[in-house]
This record gives sequence, C-alpha cells and structure tokens, in this order.
Amino acid sequence: MNSMNNLVIDAQRLWNDLIETARIGGTQKGGIRRLTLTDEDRRVRAWFREQCQALGCDVRVDDVGNMFAIRQGRRSDLPPIAIGSHLDTQPTGGKFDGVLGVLAGLECLRSLADARYETNAPLMLVNWTNEEGSRFAPAMLGSGVYAGVFDRAYAESRADREGVSFGEALDQIGYRGPWLAGSIPIGAMFELHIEQGPILEAEGDTIGIVRGVQGMRWYDVEVRGREAHAGSTPMSMRRDALTASATLICDLDRIARAYADAVATVGTIAVEPSSRNVIPGSVLLSVDLRHPDAEVLNRLESELKEALDALGEDHGVETSLTRIWDSPPVHFHEDCVAAVRGAAEACGYRTREMVSGAGHDAAYVARVAPTAMIFVPCAGGLSHNEEEDASFDDCKAGAQVLLQAVLSYDRQFA
Amino acid sequence: MNSMNNLVIDAQRLWNDLIETARIGGTQKGGIRRLTLTDEDRRVRAWFREQCQALGCDVRVDDVGNMFAIRQGRRSDLPPIAIGSHLDTQPTGGKFDGVLGVLAGLECLRSLADARYETNAPLMLVNWTNEEGSRFAPAMLGSGVYAGVFDRAYAESRADREGVSFGEALDQIGYRGPWLAGSIPIGAMFELHIEQGPILEAEGDTIGIVRGVQGMRWYDVEVRGREAHAGSTPMSMRRDALTASATLICDLDRIARAYADAVATVGTIAVEPSSRNVIPGSVLLSVDLRHPDAEVLNRLESELKEALDALGEDHGVETSLTRIWDSPPVHFHEDCVAAVRGAAEACGYRTREMVSGAGHDAAYVARVAPTAMIFVPCAGGLSHNEEEDASFDDCKAGAQVLLQAVLSYDRQFA
Repeated sequence: MNSMNNLVIDAQRLWNDLIETARIGGTQKGGIRRLTLTDEDRRVRAWFREQCQALGCDVRVDDVGNMFAIRQGRRSDLPPIAIGSHLDTQPTGGKFDGVLGVLAGLECLRSLADARYETNAPLMLVNWTNEEGSRFAPAMLGSGVYAGVFDRAYAESRADREGVSFGEALDQIGYRGPWLAGSIPIGAMFELHIEQGPILEAEGDTIGIVRGVQGMRWYDVEVRGREAHAGSTPMSMRRDALTASATLICDLDRIARAYADAVATVGTIAVEPSSRNVIPGSVLLSVDLRHPDAEVLNRLESELKEALDALGEDHGVETSLTRIWDSPPVHFHEDCVAAVRGAAEACGYRTREMVSGAGHDAAYVARVAPTAMIFVPCAGGLSHNEEEDASFDDCKAGAQVLLQAVLSYDRQFA
Repeated sequence: MNSMNNLVIDAQRLWNDLIETARIGGTQKGGIRRLTLTDEDRRVRAWFREQCQALGCDVRVDDVGNMFAIRQGRRSDLPPIAIGSHLDTQPTGGKFDGVLGVLAGLECLRSLADARYETNAPLMLVNWTNEEGSRFAPAMLGSGVYAGVFDRAYAESRADREGVSFGEALDQIGYRGPWLAGSIPIGAMFELHIEQGPILEAEGDTIGIVRGVQGMRWYDVEVRGREAHAGSTPMSMRRDALTASATLICDLDRIARAYADAVATVGTIAVEPSSRNVIPGSVLLSVDLRHPDAEVLNRLESELKEALDALGEDHGVETSLTRIWDSPPVHFHEDCVAAVRGAAEACGYRTREMVSGAGHDAAYVARVAPTAMIFVPCAGGLSHNEEEDASFDDCKAGAQVLLQAVLSYDRQFA
C-alpha cells in the first residue's frame, strides 16, 4: 500500500473524463446543456454508474435520484466519507460547474483503486440531483431533501415549465431509487468546485480553503411615486419612482462597501408605465444581500431600511420592503476545513481562506455531517455560461487536494 | 353688433358639447378611447361637421383628414384666423385633451353667430388628424404634414399595429379630402389646451399664456459592464451596469435641477440578464431632456456626456449615447401671445406666462403662421389618463379668453 503522500491523481485521465462527459448535452459553443432528469442527465448518470461499478463500487439511488457510489474501507462500522457535487447543468452551462467535483471524486476512486489503497472508513462518491434548480426550482433540491431542508412531497411536486413534476421526471428517466433520501449515512463530505468568482484568479491563488457559505437574504422592493408627463412636470413637482430607486441603488452600493466581505446586488428592475416621455410612477426591484456573519446581515438590512425610509422624505415616494428568502450563513466543520488546509499546504499550492458566495450541495449537507469545500479558479470568474473555463493545472490541483484531504480526514479512523 | 367686451361665451353649452361628444368612444372609467381614423373618430367628425355646417360654415377636408370649418368675415382677401386642436384621444384618454380646444372653438363660433358678430378676417375652426400618435406614430401627423414637417407619402405609409396604413385608414372612414394639405391658408392660429402639467393648479392661476414650446431631445443610452455572480463577486471587482446607470440617473436629476426650467427624465430602463442573483451586465435606458432655450439644451447635453464619461472611470463600464430625436424650441408669435395676454387680463383672470412642456399642433403650425396657445389647469396635472379632469369654470375661462384673443387679433384688420 502506498503512503498518502506518494498518491498522485492522474490529471490526464480526469481531463479525459471531463471532455468525454461534456459531449453528453454538449453545445456548439463548447458548453453543456444537461438539465436535471432529462435524457441527457439519464445518459451521464448511466456513464457515471458504469464507471463506479467498474471500480467495484456499490451504486445506490435514493428516492429523489441522488446517486451514491460506495467503495468499502477497512472498517464497515463507520459511515462513509463522501465526495460529492452534481452532474446537472444550467441551460447554457459550462463544463466544470458541479461536474469537476464529481469527476475529480471519480478520479480519486480510480487512483485509490490503481494503488490498491484501502481507506479506514468507506468512501462514497455522490451525484446530487437538481443542484442547479434551472428546470425545477429551488436549487439544491436533492441535497436539500437529503438534509431535511425540503420535504420529499414538496420536492416531488415541483414542476418544470411544461408542467412535468419532479416526481414524474424521476420516473421518466428511471431514477426514483429504492433508498429513502437521508437513509444512506454520510460521515463527512468534501466538495470540490470551481470558485464561480474572480478572487483566486485575481490574487494568483490556486486553492480556496472554503470555511463556509455566506448568509443570503433576498428582498422585493417597491417604490411608488406619481406617473406624470415628462415635459410639463417641473423637477420640483415630481415624485419620480425611478430617480428615487436610483438613489437607493447608489446607497446600497455604499452600504455594502462599508462592511468587509459584504455584497449587495440589484439584479432586476422594472418601471411602470415604461414610456420614454412619462415619469415612472412605480418601480419594482430585487435586492440580494450576502455576508458570512448573520449579525452583519442584520445591520445591512437595517441600513437598507433606513435608506428606503429616507426616499420617502427626499423624493415623495412610498416604499415597501419584503424579505422573500433568508438563507443563514453556513460554517463548515473545522476538522474538514483543517484537512483541506493541510492537504493544500502539503501539496505546496498557494491558498486562500474564503467563504463561498454561492450556494452548494455542501451547504445543505453541512447541516447533517461535517463538511468542507475546495475551490479552484475559473477564468474571469465566469460561470453559468458556456464560456466557463478552468485550466488543466487547476483541475489537477483541485483533485489532488481533494484526495489528500479525504485521506487526511480518514487517518483519524486508523 | 355687440362690442367685443360684451361677448360672453355660453359655458353650459360648451360643457354640454363636452359631455355629448365624450359618449363617442366613452369608457367605463369616464375617459375616452377615440383613436384617430377609427369608427369612433368618424362619428365625432360627422358630429363636428354637422354642428359647423349648422352655423353656416363651409367645411373642407384635406388629403390627410384635417377638417377646416370656415366662417366668412367682412374681408375675403384675408387668410382665416384659425382656432384648432384635435378630437382624437389616447387609448385610455381623458375628456379634455385636444377636445376642449376644438369644442371651445365651436362655442366661439356659436357665440359669434348668436351675436351676429362679423369678424374682419374669416375664422376657421380646425380639427387636426392624429395629434396623439397612439395609433400611427409619430404624433401631430396632420398638422405636421400641413406645416411641411412631414412628407405626405411618409404620413400615408405609417402603419398601425394591425398593419393598416394611415392612407388606408383615411379611405376606410371616408376622410381623405380633396384639398391638398397646406393649401388652405391660415393667417394665424390660437389653440386652447389643458396644461397637462401641475403648475397652474399648484400656483392658483387660471390662464397660462403660452409663449412657446420647449425644445426636446431624446437619447438612447447603453451601459455595458460585466455580468457576474451576485454572491461570489466582491464589490471591488464588479463592473455593475445597473449601479453605474443609477449613478447616471442621480447625476441627471442634479444636472436638470441646476438650470431653471430644465427637465430631464429617464422613463425606461431594461437590464440584462435581469436575474435576481446576477450582477447586471448591460443596461439600456432612455433620456428625455427639455428646455425652452436651445443653448441650454446644448449645455444639458454636454453635462449628460460628461456624466456618462465619468461612469467609465468610476464603474469600469463602457457607455454609448445616441440622440434619436431633436425637436427645437418653438417661440410663438409675439402678436398672438399679446392678444392672449390682453384677453386674459381684460377678463381679470390670474395668469402665468409659461412654455409648453408637451408638443401640440400649434408647435408645427407656428412654422407657417403666427400662433399662440392658451392653457387652463387640469386636476393634479393628470393627462393621457381616463381620470383627466378640468373644471367647468376653467373650461369657461379658457373659452372666453380664446374668443377675446381671436377678436383682439382680428381688430388689426378693421
């Protein structure tokens, strides 16, 4: 049996797997369109099952389609250490989002098999269903049901735009498995993922040691002024809902910049009546606030409210704020984070401790098992896009750190 | 023959005409839907022709449907003094916009007939075709062809949403007249209109002495940043097209307020990709700048350009500005304005000198004949709305000033 430090993943084999599976749902622009529970998803699942079975794994499917490929370890009394992510993509998704985490996990299993390396705990490679949420909202539905965030019946009833329910789609591709979601235990989970942001690339770091996931709050904001003629209404007599909203957007930018690690985004805005020569009478806009610390999120929310209240006085408008979603910050398990940190340092990569800005399956699994994530750079921070790109070397680094983190974590069970 | 000062219009008769014609295309909410060259327009035109002919007028129709009801004066060597506005409405229009100007003109003719008053010059009541531009863009098409602003063939080819051309619609309702547009001379024109703005009401004035029409420039603005993930892109690394646009909207508000009588409006805004958790990559917005003085408009445009340029540096975005329309300021004829001023003062009304913020048929007619306008208040400045409202007393005041201004102007031809 090789010692841990001699075990090196086969980066070319990983890359070949990335290229090969990217053909399933591959788009002309070099991306992937592989919506969850479609025929493309069925094909990549079949490929995944075949590869895992070829490595001697027992592949189980639960009742929301999550796939678990179990490789036995020395001790059968321990729950498996999981490596997981997702093989579904956005409608115009890239080749790495989710896929890298699963295929790097597969490469870990291949490398261990080649080396005839026996872990103490069993290992388990997981393909979570419907991480993207593009076909069936919300996102991370499979890991969410697994972790008890969503009710099974709720998940089954989610419908796509054609009215097909999640439950029907499971049956259509034959992936409603016999195992109750959550009944297959996870001792810990490690998820490798592209950063989907620009920080690692900009800072020249290779490995992001992800300590947790930001808290996130979504709001609907309505600003009501008075629709009026653009030519005959003097500036001093206006109650312009759009100018008031623009003030809010500028305020929000200033508020977020005042707190380290805070982000605030207005992604959508709609004005009524939306005519070139009519002063907007009402505006609807979305606000997305994120921060790793719930206390700071509270303060951001307070400042947002104050800014909104000030609009009433300054612009003569009425406003309303509705919080439509609140996802609390996730703190990954220190043992798992330490395993990632140790592995990355042992490999000699430039690292950066970070908090994920986006949601991931690991965020839900963290509710029921010790969990951590590893980030690698993606070009320009671009993701959810057919031009999404990650380098051969960074994929290799991510997979290597993933393997060594898992083995490091496993050593406690010796 | 009565002296001018004894001639008082019959306000109840005017009001009755307003009520009666409001039934043609009347809406449940108390407004009017009487789009140009529809069957409703045909019906109100027939009513108008009948009333004018009953007063002994000769009604002529030109080849773009403009209607001219001529009442002979003492001298047949003079071109007629016109009173004009429009009987077409917005899709959800009010009872006063345009209609008041025509029916007040009709009431002037009725009062003169009752008093057997003979003017020096002939009088001519005009109903201009397609002032609103709701069915066939652009607005003020009939007066525009009359004044040589638009080519006749261009007007005929304008199509509505069903693909029916302006020319076809003229034929359908039988209002392609035998007279060449522009061939029926106008010696001067007076147009009474509701203000369509809030100033008179707010200031407690009854009569607006309209000295001209603001210059108006329309622009398309494009702001291109970088689409990115709302969660994983730090504030410092964003190129947020919407935050940049919001800054521009606030700047524009400040710029306009720095110049007396300037107005600036952003009436439409569209963001891409318009997703709650994606930083907007691009924004399209409209800018409407107006001022009575072309030189000030130039300065406003320069400051708009500077504000746009500053966005590039401050927000890392690229911008473009396209001027899509430029309507120069209109200065009404001092003789006509003086006639309005003298009439309003003689009647003892509180007056205000003003410049129209909106376009009107009078703005085009002013290119070919001495012209002026009279404004009366409308409730809350509301127009292009079924709730548009003007009081009995203000309609009376407007019609009275209209009559006396016309008679005052006519006295020079004694």
